[in-house]
Amino acid sequence: MSGWIAVAGLGPGAPELITPDVAATLEKATDIIGYGPYVARIAQRDGLNLHASDNRVELDRACHALELAASGARVVIVSSGDPGVFAMASALFEAAECWPAPLPEIHVLPGITAMLAAAARAGAPLGHDFCAINLSDNLKPFALIERRLRHAARGDFAMAFYNPRSATRPHQFARVLQILREECNDDRPVIFARAVSTPEESLKTVALPQATPEMADMRTVVLVGNSMTRQVGRWIYTPRRAEAG
Amino acid sequence: MSGWIAVAGLGPGAPELITPDVAATLEKATDIIGYGPYVARIAQRDGLNLHASDNRVELDRACHALELAASGARVVIVSSGDPGVFAMASALFEAAECWPAPLPEIHVLPGITAMLAAAARAGAPLGHDFCAINLSDNLKPFALIERRLRHAARGDFAMAFYNPRSATRPHQFARVLQILREECNDDRPVIFARAVSTPEESLKTVALPQATPEMADMRTVVLVGNSMTRQVGRWIYTPRRAEAG
Repeated sequence: MSGWIAVAGLGPGAPELITPDVAATLEKATDIIGYGPYVARIAQRDGLNLHASDNRVELDRACHALELAASGARVVIVSSGDPGVFAMASALFEAAECWPAPLPEIHVLPGITAMLAAAARAGAPLGHDFCAINLSDNLKPFALIERRLRHAARGDFAMAFYNPRSATRPHQFARVLQILREECNDDRPVIFARAVSTPEESLKTVALPQATPEMADMRTVVLVGNSMTRQVGRWIYTPRRAEAG
Repeated sequence: MSGWIAVAGLGPGAPELITPDVAATLEKATDIIGYGPYVARIAQRDGLNLHASDNRVELDRACHALELAASGARVVIVSSGDPGVFAMASALFEAAECWPAPLPEIHVLPGITAMLAAAARAGAPLGHDFCAINLSDNLKPFALIERRLRHAARGDFAMAFYNPRSATRPHQFARVLQILREECNDDRPVIFARAVSTPEESLKTVALPQATPEMADMRTVVLVGNSMTRQVGRWIYTPRRAEAG
């Protein structure tokens, strides 16, 4: 029997946002690998081995998946959201570069990524050209984050920020907001969407000058409109039409 | 009985990529509104009215949905992919601005957007910071597209292009490729992903100098790596780690 690896996106939290493709693949798995809180979302059943691991051990997790698949296991690596957006798919391919044997069959199964779940709740703030930026400086220097923020603002992109703030770098998101204030108009809406589609969901929209670092934590995705983003009723949206600026 | 509108993402094509949330909402609908090929994906049943319309009449479609909901209908506006990414959600809120009565209950239901389905097939080319750009100049000047392309390249973002090419503007995508060649290194991978998850699916990866306009059509999403995007086996991925550059 030959093993395989699927890297699957569980979406932002609600079971109704897991694709049937991912659900069917989970049914066929012998082993589930992932960060503890994501593995905890998988129902236990006979013959299924759950391997929960800590944060920041993505490469160990990927190597473990390659070892299990080589011994014939059917392995699903679970990510929250979409596995290709700041999640486990890149880590698996990084590990694959050092893998001494032929690669097993690999499938990447897309999921609903946090920024699109958040945008849907708010209206359509990412309805025109936009950027997705991971604000964690765990694997990249803050200078690169700043460079990307300024290009995103000067290109008048809407923006989505993943991992805006953590306990180990409390001051950095304040600096991000400062850079945005230097580059963007004052009425720019900033949406703090926390734990969308879970019982802890919250959504808060403020104008850029009122945004504070405390409004975000590691379960928050932050969306910033472009220069044309508007409000209608309780909805925030970015029009499809744009000027040269 | 009070009507409502749901703007729902049907994903890139395969039924297994439609979320249970969207499927359950389609079951409750009295009316389905959308571009013909998307409405054609909805199974007919008693009591369900299908309203297929042409391309480029997004505002008419949105007004029709508001009228039907005002008269008590349960309306689903269907988009391919995700409704908030170059699709019907923004058009609905644009129409809502001119709507003379209180807005009905509105829900935006996220879906698997084309770039993430395409990225999953290729590996993880959007595994680091990236931009999504609509290359259609139907609603924005080409000067703005060019400005955004140059900022995206200078920020070393990976990129996803929607609507790269149509019969009415065959030369424009050649200009886009020229701008990318001016801004990016020659080994930059360009992925042409067509009709992902449908029977017509195709995937082709070339280095930037070999990319030609004919490789794309309106069913293609084009992904461009950042300066660190690499290949392992048949997979293209962007590492999670990055330098200041």
